Amino acid sequence: MAQWKIDKEVDYEIFELGDLKLQKGMTLPNAKLAYKTFGRLNADKSNVILLLTYMASTHYDNQWVIREGGALDPSKYFIIIPNVFGNGLSSSPSNTPAPYNKARFPHVTYYDNIKAQHRLLTEKFGITKIKMVTGWSMAAAQTFHWAALYPDMVETICPTAGSAKTAKHNHVMLEGVKAALTADDSFKEGWYDDQPFKGLRAMGRVYAGWGFSQEFFRKEEYLELGYASVEDFIVGYWEQWFNLRDANNMVAMIRTWQSGDISDNELYNGDFRKALGAIKAKAIVMPGDCDLYFPPEDSAFEVEHMPNAELRPFRSSHGHFAGGSGLRQADVKFLDEAWRELLAS
Amino acid sequence: MAQWKIDKEVDYEIFELGDLKLQKGMTLPNAKLAYKTFGRLNADKSNVILLLTYMASTHYDNQWVIREGGALDPSKYFIIIPNVFGNGLSSSPSNTPAPYNKARFPHVTYYDNIKAQHRLLTEKFGITKIKMVTGWSMAAAQTFHWAALYPDMVETICPTAGSAKTAKHNHVMLEGVKAALTADDSFKEGWYDDQPFKGLRAMGRVYAGWGFSQEFFRKEEYLELGYASVEDFIVGYWEQWFNLRDANNMVAMIRTWQSGDISDNELYNGDFRKALGAIKAKAIVMPGDCDLYFPPEDSAFEVEHMPNAELRPFRSSHGHFAGGSGLRQADVKFLDEAWRELLAS
Repeated sequence: MAQWKIDKEVDYEIFELGDLKLQKGMTLPNAKLAYKTFGRLNADKSNVILLLTYMASTHYDNQWVIREGGALDPSKYFIIIPNVFGNGLSSSPSNTPAPYNKARFPHVTYYDNIKAQHRLLTEKFGITKIKMVTGWSMAAAQTFHWAALYPDMVETICPTAGSAKTAKHNHVMLEGVKAALTADDSFKEGWYDDQPFKGLRAMGRVYAGWGFSQEFFRKEEYLELGYASVEDFIVGYWEQWFNLRDANNMVAMIRTWQSGDISDNELYNGDFRKALGAIKAKAIVMPGDCDLYFPPEDSAFEVEHMPNAELRPFRSSHGHFAGGSGLRQADVKFLDEAWRELLAS
Repeated sequence: MAQWKIDKEVDYEIFELGDLKLQKGMTLPNAKLAYKTFGRLNADKSNVILLLTYMASTHYDNQWVIREGGALDPSKYFIIIPNVFGNGLSSSPSNTPAPYNKARFPHVTYYDNIKAQHRLLTEKFGITKIKMVTGWSMAAAQTFHWAALYPDMVETICPTAGSAKTAKHNHVMLEGVKAALTADDSFKEGWYDDQPFKGLRAMGRVYAGWGFSQEFFRKEEYLELGYASVEDFIVGYWEQWFNLRDANNMVAMIRTWQSGDISDNELYNGDFRKALGAIKAKAIVMPGDCDLYFPPEDSAFEVEHMPNAELRPFRSSHGHFAGGSGLRQADVKFLDEAWRELLAS
């Protein structure tokens, strides 16, 4: 059996969760939470930042924002990046032994992710307060979940280009992405030995229309990113991205994403407004102003129902990718300033 | 060899085009233009309306707008619907004999379509003036092409939710649709005997995210259309639509769509502004105000460079589908009024 590998130096830790009972009723045996920390936890444990990982990414893809002199300065803060389940480092279809492997990998929710991350923070580090939780896209959803599930623990949040509850349109968009991936016969309903590369490429090609904005293409901004043409951008950026991923891992993360809802738990019993209202953290909620699958209208609704939140959209042609890709310097700066503001508060 | 069939009464005519030399350098042997007419051509041939067909549609899907008492009244006007090449009735991958069949069907452009339609109108009917050309989406593109290629023949145009030149983002969106369709191994690079239904379903599922707007799903308007859930809408509307189509025909029409450009010909040599400026027809250009792949900004640019054009966007949650699906009565009425206005001018 081929196992999909991430060709990077192994520089992270594993927090053993044991047999993890999941929200939707299955058990993830010997569940593992892969994480990496930066900086040092101070004496009163008051300098914790949680940086979460987005779809199809690991801490390797996220750690670039952590740098001395930046808002997320490891000389000041203790920054933890826990890897989302399904990303290939934490428990995932690609690294879980049979019979819970591949297509049989159970449905993991954001709730499950946050509960596991909470155990890491409390059991491993004895942390009781988090200065800031932040992340882009699926990581923004995790950020909202943290604030709703542990309102007394989270002081500030900065979710970018993501939602507290997955919108129906967003669900449909993901259905298209998944359909393209799984249309490849080599996917074998998840029981492949070798990756279904045609499906992974198709998935990238579908995503290519969604990630940025119409204006991005109108202004030919892919040229500024170093690509020679639209087709070069599709192949070199989008197909490349998904070509390196495990197909079942993608499906598992999409499932997590699609079922996102901060109120789908014992605290709020599906009352979304109540869950938003229970968030105590000071929040700067940052949609992309032309994000095609997390439109700012949904963020506006969230902010309206949160007691201590500000809506601060990226003004950017990068659409969804304004929120954390790091590709556009104005967006990076805009986000860095919001982080600084929250950390100073 | 299975040939994909449209299960409708054969009620149309065929105009024989002979061996058609195509713009991109191939020949379509014994090319056929399927068309249907409504009403009677008056004595001075001044009552002609051209209603064009959109992607994956035939005259069967378009003729519902023609009715006594409506703007397109067959008791007043002689209305011609020529079927776009690739739609299964006019020459298409599915009905052209080898060796130009299936995957070998040549690249047909809008230019080729309009030149063929022009022959039908002039050679068959002796028509020299068209009162109005109109159509939705790919048919809007054909409408623009008519006005640019025959500026002295076309008196008014009403293109809805379409463009005079296919935008790069629109091209990318179509790449995703095509990738989902062709990821199915049963597609066999176009040389299938039986339709690649998994790919056709995947194509429908990708399209499902694009056709309407985020607001449409936010307000659960699929319920008003009679579907029980989002999934019911995806299966019953989108998968259903494409499930009835021939895969190579879809690819052929996407190719026509992707290469759309009213200036890509001997008249304008790629000078898009010049081509827009040459359109003499009085025009009402009607984008959907939240169309995800024909954003109104592109229509605004077109109108700005046309001498006699008005921008009149649909205010509609139906996104692209505001332009001609007939699903939302307010959109139907809005369009009918624009047609009346142009026909009265």
